[in-house]
Amino acid sequence: MDYMKDPMGIEKRSFEIIESEMGEHNFSKSELSIVKRVIHTTADFEYMKLLYIREGAIESALQLLKEGTTIYTDTNMALSGINKAALKTLNSKVQCFVAREDVAKEAKEKGITRSMAAVEKAVEEGVDFFVFGNAPTALYKLKELTLKGMAKPKFIIGAPIGFVGAAESKEEIEKLDLPLITIRGRKGGSSVAASIVNALMYMLVKR
Amino acid sequence: MDYMKDPMGIEKRSFEIIESEMGEHNFSKSELSIVKRVIHTTADFEYMKLLYIREGAIESALQLLKEGTTIYTDTNMALSGINKAALKTLNSKVQCFVAREDVAKEAKEKGITRSMAAVEKAVEEGVDFFVFGNAPTALYKLKELTLKGMAKPKFIIGAPIGFVGAAESKEEIEKLDLPLITIRGRKGGSSVAASIVNALMYMLVKR
Repeated sequence: MDYMKDPMGIEKRSFEIIESEMGEHNFSKSELSIVKRVIHTTADFEYMKLLYIREGAIESALQLLKEGTTIYTDTNMALSGINKAALKTLNSKVQCFVAREDVAKEAKEKGITRSMAAVEKAVEEGVDFFVFGNAPTALYKLKELTLKGMAKPKFIIGAPIGFVGAAESKEEIEKLDLPLITIRGRKGGSSVAASIVNALMYMLVKR
Repeated sequence: MDYMKDPMGIEKRSFEIIESEMGEHNFSKSELSIVKRVIHTTADFEYMKLLYIREGAIESALQLLKEGTTIYTDTNMALSGINKAALKTLNSKVQCFVAREDVAKEAKEKGITRSMAAVEKAVEEGVDFFVFGNAPTALYKLKELTLKGMAKPKFIIGAPIGFVGAAESKEEIEKLDLPLITIRGRKGGSSVAASIVNALMYMLVKR
């Protein structure tokens, strides 16, 4: 059986196919690299329309990554999907707060979801780079803490997926005047969120 | 801010929305629970057309899960997405062979991809429940070993995603007369693969 076996070769060819099928668009070079990676992850060209990149958001994310940052994720899947070698090169790390024991305990004590307790804990610990692929409640919590002046996020990826509350949670977070990238509507998810983080890192790190 | 916070309540309502928007279909009850969970994971109704469930495949998977099995995955993301509590109840476990040190070493020595070496290793160790969300080359390798009589898979989820080789790899694996579930075409991915495993486990395990 004859088939292509070189992973980087496959990726390069995939991106060529994606670009050729995208048709006309107005994305900048750096925006385009995010859009293409999301389509690469989903095989779904609808993301061309769903991806919202606020002006200046990419620059804010790159600044944090250059300085070395701790990335919050709301799922182990998003954490798994983020390229660890690139992360290491950038002196950055990623943590799934939702999976932490102390967060589970606090959620139970307070009668809130683990996602909400996780955001509180991350804010307490000074995290300012947030990646959401799953839980709408976490986005609401971050908005609430930001409006109260208790959280000062410097970059947010808002990509919860789902049929109940996901789209609304992303509309709500977009109302904040903050650097953010969101997936509008129902779509998104952990793998999409991770792919956006990777696209950002690959702007800084040679592979 | 008022929003739904109960995860199981959100899931139940999501499944109701999905079913109401699916329209007419010919899925059996157990097929339907897989289709709905894949749509729940992707917010993408195209999966209604892309999901191929071979006759008898669900029963084969359930038999393995009832007996207790080791599930092969080709990515840490797929591994992360599989419900560990349900897995434990079923005396089953999941392993991402691609991430193993000895597999990386063997791949290098033999000049093959890690995905291919991972399949070889899993077959050596008697694994017969395979979940592919990423690497087309792994599917080709499993087909090759099966045709040679060296591998005897009892259940396969073939869901590599991508623009180069993914669709073809799934066509190839479907040619085997084996119990399998595939995502036809370009779509699929680790989260889709994991959601199919979860849908199967939830047929046996109360949550």
